[in-house]
Amino acid sequence: MTFQLHPEGSGCLYEQIYEHIRKEIKEGKLLAGERLPSTRALAEYLQVARSTVDYAYGQLLSEGYIESRPCKGYYACALEEMPWTEEPGGETGAQTQSGVPPLSGEGVIDFSPYDIDMTGFPFSVWKKITKHILTCANSDLFARGEAQGDYGLRLTISRYLHSSRGVNCRPEQVIVGAGNDYLLLLLEKILGRHVRIAMENPTYKRSYRIFQSFSYPISTVDMDEWGMRADRLERENVSAVYVMPSHQFPTGTVMPIGRRMELLRWAAREPERYLIEDDYDSEFRFRGKPIPALQASDRHGRVIYLGTFSKAIAPAIRVSFLVLPESLLEKYLRECGFYSCTVSRIDQSILDEFIREGYFERHLNKMRKIYRAKHELLLNLLQPFREEFDISGENAGLHLVLTSRGGSAERELVRRAAEQGVRVYGLSESMVEEAPDSASVLLGFGGLSGAAIQEGMERLGQAWKQ
Amino acid sequence: MTFQLHPEGSGCLYEQIYEHIRKEIKEGKLLAGERLPSTRALAEYLQVARSTVDYAYGQLLSEGYIESRPCKGYYACALEEMPWTEEPGGETGAQTQSGVPPLSGEGVIDFSPYDIDMTGFPFSVWKKITKHILTCANSDLFARGEAQGDYGLRLTISRYLHSSRGVNCRPEQVIVGAGNDYLLLLLEKILGRHVRIAMENPTYKRSYRIFQSFSYPISTVDMDEWGMRADRLERENVSAVYVMPSHQFPTGTVMPIGRRMELLRWAAREPERYLIEDDYDSEFRFRGKPIPALQASDRHGRVIYLGTFSKAIAPAIRVSFLVLPESLLEKYLRECGFYSCTVSRIDQSILDEFIREGYFERHLNKMRKIYRAKHELLLNLLQPFREEFDISGENAGLHLVLTSRGGSAERELVRRAAEQGVRVYGLSESMVEEAPDSASVLLGFGGLSGAAIQEGMERLGQAWKQ
Repeated sequence: MTFQLHPEGSGCLYEQIYEHIRKEIKEGKLLAGERLPSTRALAEYLQVARSTVDYAYGQLLSEGYIESRPCKGYYACALEEMPWTEEPGGETGAQTQSGVPPLSGEGVIDFSPYDIDMTGFPFSVWKKITKHILTCANSDLFARGEAQGDYGLRLTISRYLHSSRGVNCRPEQVIVGAGNDYLLLLLEKILGRHVRIAMENPTYKRSYRIFQSFSYPISTVDMDEWGMRADRLERENVSAVYVMPSHQFPTGTVMPIGRRMELLRWAAREPERYLIEDDYDSEFRFRGKPIPALQASDRHGRVIYLGTFSKAIAPAIRVSFLVLPESLLEKYLRECGFYSCTVSRIDQSILDEFIREGYFERHLNKMRKIYRAKHELLLNLLQPFREEFDISGENAGLHLVLTSRGGSAERELVRRAAEQGVRVYGLSESMVEEAPDSASVLLGFGGLSGAAIQEGMERLGQAWKQ
Repeated sequence: MTFQLHPEGSGCLYEQIYEHIRKEIKEGKLLAGERLPSTRALAEYLQVARSTVDYAYGQLLSEGYIESRPCKGYYACALEEMPWTEEPGGETGAQTQSGVPPLSGEGVIDFSPYDIDMTGFPFSVWKKITKHILTCANSDLFARGEAQGDYGLRLTISRYLHSSRGVNCRPEQVIVGAGNDYLLLLLEKILGRHVRIAMENPTYKRSYRIFQSFSYPISTVDMDEWGMRADRLERENVSAVYVMPSHQFPTGTVMPIGRRMELLRWAAREPERYLIEDDYDSEFRFRGKPIPALQASDRHGRVIYLGTFSKAIAPAIRVSFLVLPESLLEKYLRECGFYSCTVSRIDQSILDEFIREGYFERHLNKMRKIYRAKHELLLNLLQPFREEFDISGENAGLHLVLTSRGGSAERELVRRAAEQGVRVYGLSESMVEEAPDSASVLLGFGGLSGAAIQEGMERLGQAWKQ
């Protein structure tokens, strides 16, 4: 491997190293299994600091281009394992388009922002654990468990949340439930009937519908580039705010610490004000530093944290969890503690073992790699679109937002895409009040194979060219 | 086997035959595996109609004293399999007392009316099916399923309900959910906020608390020997009635058809009146004809049927179901159809296979035998109590009600039982308004082994003797 650094060229030194090696692998010049030079040797050869090479290798590693073998060094990965090359048959889900290779002109390509990649689901591990749980099971496991969920699982969840999201909680504060919808139903019983709630606009429509079905009066609060305008809350006369600070749906906005503190101050200003933090896909972040949960900054017990394993593992794993602040925990125990748990003890045990044995972390690492690769692919394929579109929400999550600079109507973009057999999602689908036709569409990539993303972007190029 | 019939003796002929054979088996005079005379031979020998012998044999068969082998005849069963003899270790649940043989004076015997016998749970079958489901599983099974539950399971449930309970419904009317509590939460969203509800008094306290948490105004309606006083409903100004017609909890009252028709007429008299039928333990009926569900008689689409697999299989099987009348189904689809299903598709598939392959029916038959035997044992042991107590609710379900003839206060009965290490349940625990101290206690036997029942009744004899 030889290459030239350009100290005056585009990108800093580590980026050049990273780009060069990545290209070598992608073009097949560095073959799978080939050993890379040690970081020390490469640093000496290039006459750069070893930390610069370390950083580049770290990036390649986390993106799955290379792997590290203990005591041996770094090796190029087999790109056949990359998600956009052909998938092995049999385990392709109905929600992914990967079941239609080669992509014919007739298959609709659905850039759904709600789908996830199920080809990465660790079937064999899940089966193994299930078998193990059932083998060890005694009739206890088939008896009614604790209303909040088994203590063991709640302990595991609280530990995971602390290490991965900075959430501070005792297992006693965790309530396990079968999906976010159910937990929101339970939350209504805890908060009571007379809640006035504020939501971002646009927002996650499912939650909006749920609050509607509670007959909660809903105020929508506009967003700027830092997220919900906290300064507008005081005049809205609300007692609860539903937010997605780490990755807002659908805009992809990440709320900076300043705005978070504003929200927390608003909540602390009056008694019984709460922030409902929906941290729905915090596991997938591709650029910049990890962002802790809003709950991590809460000093006054005003944040209700809502998380789920549906995105990170599989939708069928019907396990979500609420973390209640202490004040609401008392109310829950007093008034709602009799509602029995909606997740079977068997399923709780399987998930608990899956996390405790380290499989969850490994699965997340794998999925991050897969999604990161898809994300990069999509961003690369979007290059030719950048003249016509602004791209946002590209730091995290499983979708991007494209906004037409020329102000092409969303309706038009969706229609023209559909004519080419591509489904994209208008931003106004997530708007909750009479929505002016936006100029933005969402492109989700979670459930699409690399081949489908490639084909889909080609079609969009056709669809949207002037 | 020789015996004498007493045409003038106590009991009709078939009862004498039944009693005689049962006694022979219990006393070990007829050994397990020994063949009984054919019905024809015995009828000839006794000079009675063959149908009389048929009937006696049928009773013995259903109670597990004898078994029928195809083309071979009838054989005495091994009584070691009877639940009150020693249980095999290892699979005894925390909820049952069977884990403490021999019963020491220190072990509390809990006649809980809520417990079930988990020693009969078909672990190996459940494991086998789970393994099979996971082996055949593709990623579809881990994807989000239908909001109402998978169609296949709903079809299976509707067929089961039709054949076993006379319920008339299409699979489209069935909503699968993780437990009754969740389904009642969903029902609140369907019925709306402004429901005034009537309940029997006493009633099932858990449901009462749930309706309370909905802030529904609750009227309690007195019962007579036929159940809820339907004639009182008109003046209560309610729009919904929660009833348990097939086996009222806690009284054990079975509502006769006349009273049922009164309820149905009340519901049909005004639009938007509904009867919520909780058929919580209809599977276990020991005397008299099977009673169909109230829903089976509903001609105007006014019954909302609620059932569960928690009692019949295991509490951990978090699967309950609502059957909505057509008018509410439309409302559900329009206003609540977005609430995602709370039961994982894997669990749905396991249960579906368990029912479709006939395991559920076999399990029910087995449990009926087990419970019937415990029920008989308890009734026999209650003979000496009959001077002091009236016994009611003895036709079905997993508990009986004892009412002191002398009017001993419930509180006193519970306290004196506790002093002997026995827990019994005062009827007033199920009363929903300021309860006058009753003279009744509940004795549940579902979760107790035969040995525990025996020991418990001895202690109660001590506790309650004057």
